[in-house]
Amino acid sequence: MKVKVNGKNRDFQTVWMEKGKVKMINQLLLPEKFSIASFNRHEQVAKAIKDMVVRGAPAIGATAAYGLSLAALEFNGKNFKEFKKHLINAKKLISATRPTAVDLFKGLEAVEKAAEECNSIKEAQTESVKAAENYAEQSAEECRRIGIYGEKLLKNGSRVLTHCNAGWLACVDFGTATAPIYIAKRNGKNVFCFIDETRPRMQGAKLTAWEFAQEGIRHAVIADNAAGYFMKKGEIDIVLVGADRIAANGDFANKIGTYEKAVLAKENGIPFYVAAPLTTFDLKMKNGKKIPVEERDEKEVLEINGKRIAPKESRALNPGFDVTETGLVSGIITPKGIIKAEKKAIKKLFRR
Amino acid sequence: MKVKVNGKNRDFQTVWMEKGKVKMINQLLLPEKFSIASFNRHEQVAKAIKDMVVRGAPAIGATAAYGLSLAALEFNGKNFKEFKKHLINAKKLISATRPTAVDLFKGLEAVEKAAEECNSIKEAQTESVKAAENYAEQSAEECRRIGIYGEKLLKNGSRVLTHCNAGWLACVDFGTATAPIYIAKRNGKNVFCFIDETRPRMQGAKLTAWEFAQEGIRHAVIADNAAGYFMKKGEIDIVLVGADRIAANGDFANKIGTYEKAVLAKENGIPFYVAAPLTTFDLKMKNGKKIPVEERDEKEVLEINGKRIAPKESRALNPGFDVTETGLVSGIITPKGIIKAEKKAIKKLFRR
Repeated sequence: MKVKVNGKNRDFQTVWMEKGKVKMINQLLLPEKFSIASFNRHEQVAKAIKDMVVRGAPAIGATAAYGLSLAALEFNGKNFKEFKKHLINAKKLISATRPTAVDLFKGLEAVEKAAEECNSIKEAQTESVKAAENYAEQSAEECRRIGIYGEKLLKNGSRVLTHCNAGWLACVDFGTATAPIYIAKRNGKNVFCFIDETRPRMQGAKLTAWEFAQEGIRHAVIADNAAGYFMKKGEIDIVLVGADRIAANGDFANKIGTYEKAVLAKENGIPFYVAAPLTTFDLKMKNGKKIPVEERDEKEVLEINGKRIAPKESRALNPGFDVTETGLVSGIITPKGIIKAEKKAIKKLFRR
Repeated sequence: MKVKVNGKNRDFQTVWMEKGKVKMINQLLLPEKFSIASFNRHEQVAKAIKDMVVRGAPAIGATAAYGLSLAALEFNGKNFKEFKKHLINAKKLISATRPTAVDLFKGLEAVEKAAEECNSIKEAQTESVKAAENYAEQSAEECRRIGIYGEKLLKNGSRVLTHCNAGWLACVDFGTATAPIYIAKRNGKNVFCFIDETRPRMQGAKLTAWEFAQEGIRHAVIADNAAGYFMKKGEIDIVLVGADRIAANGDFANKIGTYEKAVLAKENGIPFYVAAPLTTFDLKMKNGKKIPVEERDEKEVLEINGKRIAPKESRALNPGFDVTETGLVSGIITPKGIIKAEKKAIKKLFRR
């Protein structure tokens, strides 16, 4: 998507390979500073994932794939067995960075599989890079398709509420919940977005707002507390969110606060859609009840920019996400079309 | 209520008069620093209200009353007519600080009325101070009564959710939504509180958490996004909030986000109570639809501690409060008992 660099619009993806280096937008510095991190060792890529220079499940998957192909490229020896050992070690290292996102493993496996089918180091190096690029391209294409299907839900003048960052920075390109908005813009529809700031980590105010500012999508940041106010005033036509995991029955986990917005949308008769690539579905999970919720560091609530907000005696509770039941969801926007958030429709999605 | 000063528990009110000076807790410095501001001129008191050294409608009412009695005390002349003119000017100055809170005018009028009935400067000075102290005492007593009635809603082990600061810092003592919790503590009930941090101004994380830390009320600060999560998990037994204005039919305005919590409480079958003194009722307001909502500075959302969060191109929308309809309210805790949030019961409250 577009980024304004020195006053000019340039096209970027979240992560890519260029002249044998893995490059990515440093998301830790946004929105203040746009900066490209560049790595020529797979250990650096692993550290970048761990440190959240790049974040968002689909983006992590592609970064892991590029990181493993970088491990192939960086190998200097001539012994094919040594090369294979090197790849196995690199995979292990990258796997250990953020093991909860299933996409990370899918990205690594795609590259590993390509290398395994080769008979020489040189061939394996070429095929690893190709596999990583294929993986990233396919991931971007899935998001683009989400956009094409989801765009039909938006009219000229539609007012959308988004939560957290389910944008292109979290993917390779287009994003999930943002893809319909970007495609609508390309099709000449004028869409306005309310962006939940998304405490505690502020991914809405920091990342989604930055994406929209770059793309020229009209928007306003709001406190998470204000979403209900604008819904009741009739100023929000549709809610679009991403998902971290979707169970077989349509229940889904997403950033903390998503459930609140879903309940408020139902109360106010506003359509509530989840956008997700196929990798987000976890059919082994019968429903949302057993999706584990990560309890994150209380400092995310008690401090902002390293400065304490609450009294030193106070503790905080900081669940990282919540689960929204299928009954609150109008539909799921997938790369294969919009489906009902129900067992039968989800099963069919994977039978096609 | 209690404040720990140099390791010792001391009793404080939000604002008081001592040796001819108006003293108040400087709320701008909390929770980092506990500091008493002391004023010997009514102009300083007016500025303190304007700068939010003291805030919360009942606290502002008492501060205004003390400020006007200070104007009486500070008068050095001997001409009674000049004295009266001085009081009128002082009242005008204090009135202009935060004209939306009806309590401010009630506090001023109480002192003005007392002075008007006197025949000498000396008498008027004595009576002004008495009137201000009466006003503050009565305000504290109303809150104490809210606590006594509301306490019956809490069991030993009850888990309460609060929003914003409707605590003793916003009143003279006890608070409104917090009063039942403080009285429960005195009666030996062990209550746990979830405190919504309350973006954008963080009055929950800063002020309510500070109050509870001082009083030894067990609590955890949570992101506003997490309230629904804990409700659904069955970890919240009751929601207690304050109010800025209650209409004749029971609709009420309160800090932004209150409406969201009310909808979530209904969805999860959790009792939702509003606590308010009689001054908060506005019987001229038929329902909540016409209560004006203040649009506050977007910087409260876009910046934290003076540091920009969102991109420089982004705008914010920042409504200061929202309106919750009577259908979402289980009851109103008043100084005269708990009543239904409906026209008939409210009318009866003022007939007694």
